[in-house]
Amino acid sequence: MTVTTESPRATEKFPASEELQLDTAALGEYLLGRWAEVRTRARALCERPEMWKIEGQPIPEHRARVLEQLGHLVDAGGVLLSFPKSVGGKADPGGNIANFEQLVLADPSLQIKSGVQWGLFGAAVMHLGTEKHHLAFLPGIMSLETPGCFAMTETGHGSDVASIATTATYDETTGDFILHTPHRGAWKDYIGNAALHGKAAVVFAQLIVRGENHGVHALYVPLRDEKGFLPGIGGEDDGPKGGLNGIDNGRLHFTNVRVPRENLLDRYGSVDDQGVYSSPIESRGRRFFTILGTLVQGRVSLVGAAAVASQLAMTIAVKYGVVRRQFPVPGADTEQVLLDYQQHQRRLLPRLANAYAMTFAQDELLSIFHEVFSGEKDTEEERQDLETLAAALKPYATWSALDIIQGARESCGGQGYLAENRLSTLHGDMDVYVTFEGDNTVLLQLVAKRLLGDYAKQFKGADFGTMAGYLADQVGEAAFNRSGLRRLAQNVADFGSTARSIGYVRSTASQRQLLTDRVHTMVADIADHLKPASKLPPEEAAALMNKHQAALIDAAWSHAELVVWEAFTHAVDRMEEGDNKQVLRWLRDLHGFTLIEKHRDWYLMKGRLSAHRAEAITDYINHRLLPRLRPHALELVDSFGLAEGHIRAPIATGEEHERQEEARAYEKGLA
Amino acid sequence: MTVTTESPRATEKFPASEELQLDTAALGEYLLGRWAEVRTRARALCERPEMWKIEGQPIPEHRARVLEQLGHLVDAGGVLLSFPKSVGGKADPGGNIANFEQLVLADPSLQIKSGVQWGLFGAAVMHLGTEKHHLAFLPGIMSLETPGCFAMTETGHGSDVASIATTATYDETTGDFILHTPHRGAWKDYIGNAALHGKAAVVFAQLIVRGENHGVHALYVPLRDEKGFLPGIGGEDDGPKGGLNGIDNGRLHFTNVRVPRENLLDRYGSVDDQGVYSSPIESRGRRFFTILGTLVQGRVSLVGAAAVASQLAMTIAVKYGVVRRQFPVPGADTEQVLLDYQQHQRRLLPRLANAYAMTFAQDELLSIFHEVFSGEKDTEEERQDLETLAAALKPYATWSALDIIQGARESCGGQGYLAENRLSTLHGDMDVYVTFEGDNTVLLQLVAKRLLGDYAKQFKGADFGTMAGYLADQVGEAAFNRSGLRRLAQNVADFGSTARSIGYVRSTASQRQLLTDRVHTMVADIADHLKPASKLPPEEAAALMNKHQAALIDAAWSHAELVVWEAFTHAVDRMEEGDNKQVLRWLRDLHGFTLIEKHRDWYLMKGRLSAHRAEAITDYINHRLLPRLRPHALELVDSFGLAEGHIRAPIATGEEHERQEEARAYEKGLA
Repeated sequence: MTVTTESPRATEKFPASEELQLDTAALGEYLLGRWAEVRTRARALCERPEMWKIEGQPIPEHRARVLEQLGHLVDAGGVLLSFPKSVGGKADPGGNIANFEQLVLADPSLQIKSGVQWGLFGAAVMHLGTEKHHLAFLPGIMSLETPGCFAMTETGHGSDVASIATTATYDETTGDFILHTPHRGAWKDYIGNAALHGKAAVVFAQLIVRGENHGVHALYVPLRDEKGFLPGIGGEDDGPKGGLNGIDNGRLHFTNVRVPRENLLDRYGSVDDQGVYSSPIESRGRRFFTILGTLVQGRVSLVGAAAVASQLAMTIAVKYGVVRRQFPVPGADTEQVLLDYQQHQRRLLPRLANAYAMTFAQDELLSIFHEVFSGEKDTEEERQDLETLAAALKPYATWSALDIIQGARESCGGQGYLAENRLSTLHGDMDVYVTFEGDNTVLLQLVAKRLLGDYAKQFKGADFGTMAGYLADQVGEAAFNRSGLRRLAQNVADFGSTARSIGYVRSTASQRQLLTDRVHTMVADIADHLKPASKLPPEEAAALMNKHQAALIDAAWSHAELVVWEAFTHAVDRMEEGDNKQVLRWLRDLHGFTLIEKHRDWYLMKGRLSAHRAEAITDYINHRLLPRLRPHALELVDSFGLAEGHIRAPIATGEEHERQEEARAYEKGLA
Repeated sequence: MTVTTESPRATEKFPASEELQLDTAALGEYLLGRWAEVRTRARALCERPEMWKIEGQPIPEHRARVLEQLGHLVDAGGVLLSFPKSVGGKADPGGNIANFEQLVLADPSLQIKSGVQWGLFGAAVMHLGTEKHHLAFLPGIMSLETPGCFAMTETGHGSDVASIATTATYDETTGDFILHTPHRGAWKDYIGNAALHGKAAVVFAQLIVRGENHGVHALYVPLRDEKGFLPGIGGEDDGPKGGLNGIDNGRLHFTNVRVPRENLLDRYGSVDDQGVYSSPIESRGRRFFTILGTLVQGRVSLVGAAAVASQLAMTIAVKYGVVRRQFPVPGADTEQVLLDYQQHQRRLLPRLANAYAMTFAQDELLSIFHEVFSGEKDTEEERQDLETLAAALKPYATWSALDIIQGARESCGGQGYLAENRLSTLHGDMDVYVTFEGDNTVLLQLVAKRLLGDYAKQFKGADFGTMAGYLADQVGEAAFNRSGLRRLAQNVADFGSTARSIGYVRSTASQRQLLTDRVHTMVADIADHLKPASKLPPEEAAALMNKHQAALIDAAWSHAELVVWEAFTHAVDRMEEGDNKQVLRWLRDLHGFTLIEKHRDWYLMKGRLSAHRAEAITDYINHRLLPRLRPHALELVDSFGLAEGHIRAPIATGEEHERQEEARAYEKGLA
């Protein structure tokens, strides 16, 4: 049987939601994406109890346990994926991250500590060093014989890496570098492995040769031997944190520490034995961004970890929500299941849709990353695209993960607060993801600058006619909106049933148009405001930019939303027709509608939606999409394919179900 | 000098923000509110190092420390405030909470554990017991000789207290009660003091006398002696949590435990020596709500604690934001202070405004609480008003606190994640506030029901004419909005400068009108949708209610927003003219505008704001209010009056300032 729902075309029919049956195995495989095999292997490893986080474990024991777990990772071989074949690696950059992102299931501390060791410390040697460094250092890094640090951030400079104050000054008389920390703000800070386990570090410093500063470069620096810090090196423990307490973050400082000339990781800048600096990249700015470009790997892996953590949180909350009961059902002799409450659906199902969207977006991001880093498609332009995409998705995914985890935690009430059910501590662990590896707010400004740049390119070399035409369009649009004509026209067309007015928004093409138009218009509006900047002195130009900083960040965020929605849409489009596709289409609609609802004020102000259509959106979410998706909520989280060894939260592995059955039996006995 | 800003009346002038100077001492005193003296005394206690939370302290030590701190509270005498004079107390319910809410500055675990002991366990004996119980039990409770539990919540029933399954069955043969836990879901759970320290408990159970269930009542039950649990009693530790790990939450169960008849806390229901049940409140429903009414004290104190935690978070983030620099200022030889970035202002200043709003709202709530609980104005109606107000403000304050703390934490980057700077762990501690003492979502539904009830009263006994008139109004309004006439009229009036269109919104009366109208209209809309419910069978009526559950919760939330905004406005109105009042007026405007901006979609859809005015709101926030308030941000947090011993975060007590000075001096030496 099929039922006809409200539709712009009377012929369109949807099957009744209850009659659809998800093939969770097939959907699960699809969700595992391009690196399904690697991900499955990594998940199998995460099921082993010795890999699990022990909630509430004291910090010293937790740190020791995570170090031991790194050893298991070495044994499992996954750490070889990213490294070059010359040193026994497998040169599979995409696979490497697909492996790494899953470790969040075991313990986010493990994910990040292994990220420090192989994704940052090891990757810096690989990407910034040359063959001699690979041969000398990578084997010890890969085998964990040399646990190490990625010593870039300083107490005084986080996101602004170009301004770090540590110096590496070339001493022509001895032929080595003098590494030095000039003041307290220049201490390296928040450095994983620095407090306890790091035997060496890649240290970023201003490279000064013959009195000239060539900007930030990286050196390989031994830190500790069996007796502790080497001479001239000191540091301290960062102490307890809001989460990730399995990692020994700490501070490091250097007092005139001598580093051999060969230890400069010299792929993008070297000093020869005559003390002459040279670089394959002439522009200092471009060199800096090339060196920093290696950081993109970290950002991509955080997107993956955020997606996996979101899957975990949704799995726990939905599995609890479909068995937990509270408050009697009027007129019935039982209590109502939480997920049958509309508010509970509103809390969880849009977040579930977002977890799906992120999962698909990560697979696309990872493919692009793999193409660039495997050399398949490694052009300057593709690198820039990758960096922009990662700079957009890292904030999107990490903030979404916090929102999803917090929503899940609150949906589980007091149970959600117990560490055994993992949600509250998962929030603590993931919290720092939004400010490290590039503060989200800073990354979104990078994205915004790129969007503005692309926009400006449209007018590069444009003759006066084009420009005038563009301006006329702009003015015309403004006049159009201000007069409310478009809105009014829509109102007239909409007059009548909700059905007709929602019809327009429901199609994929309309969702795309609304989301795309928003990015485009926001960027154009800001560009318009910033136009005078090119003629202003730098302070005033900066002040003008700052006046629109919040709008810039909003525009970048809306771009990220569009990209993620597109990834979800691609994924649905590629599926074969069937029940899975139908349910995922609804889920994608829920995702798209939630975005449009969130920015409804903008669509109304800009005349893109009539008040009538805008109101119909909430109605459609609450009374169509949520009820259609509710019967499939459990299948949708089951499709994430997480095993009990991944979930581990007692409320989501049968305990609550048993309690409810026992309570029902008791009540029946009473009656 | 004064500058003229855009204004509906050309004569209105504002002083330039830079020329205003806050009197932080006077403002501080004002913020301390009606119970300034009690609050000052409590804060002095919180400055003592032995009262401080030690971040990262292992759980067993933390629990022991907090128990010891409870002893210091006894010594300080503040715990006497709430108790009756008959047992040496001071019978000052408002003062008691003013004292208690401040403890969050020392350690939220201390606040909540003392809340368990005196605010729940002690208060239950006081409010639900009678003279004999006061004399027998309160002295031991007040002196901490008897640490105890408030054993209401069960694993299977949290918010739905009426459905708890623990039974207390009167045994006529022996004249005592048999306390029994029938199944696993009926274990008492999340109970503070249950895992370790509790020697007694007030246990809530279904009271069964002669086969009849009289509903939930409370009994005083001894739990442990020196050797551990008494016979028939068992339990377990809830283990680590997302925060508040200084409290030994645990589970309790009872297997046919005999409790003497006298231990029934019998103010609202007693069993005489003939085994006959009687109660001064005939209606079982009303009796239940009266017994539960004592919980309001806990909710009021959480509002206070949330306000104080918000003050703390804002103090840390603003003090860091005004000294921390990042990224060079173009055209200058220095770096930009974080709070000079527009986005940083947007992140922190509306949250600062909200912290102010909550502080004022708490003082109003506390006054009403005091009047009811001191007996000054203790009528049924006033009690209901108090309960509704607390049910609205508890969700508002606790969710706002999480938002404020998280915003503060992210604004401090990596520093914000270190436990020493307190923000990330403060989030963990406060997280559970949104789901305990009445889940926020459930409380908001109580508020919504009250709003609907009040609305319905308007039509009680209304004749057909009134009703028809009302319906005509409704229909008229809908037609009016749908046709967009009101919007169009506004557009015409607005045509011209932004100034003219923002003028309307800026006045206090307009903000009030917009916020009030929203609550009123939302409630009316829902009432309209729910009208058929009275004629439906219970299941269908419940289903209809559920269809509008999200809207109900939104309406209740908007009511809470209005109440808090009103409290802020009253507080500003009561101030003498001067710089303090001018700056607080702007801060209140920022608060009001932020609310209107947040719900802009609603105002647009309902035709209350034109697109043009709606756009001007963001512009006014970003380009008028934020720049005006920026120069006063530090004074505004200084006015909270928190001492170094309360703040304790190194980044907010001078360390960052020193680092910046040192770095500037170093850079100057380089130049």
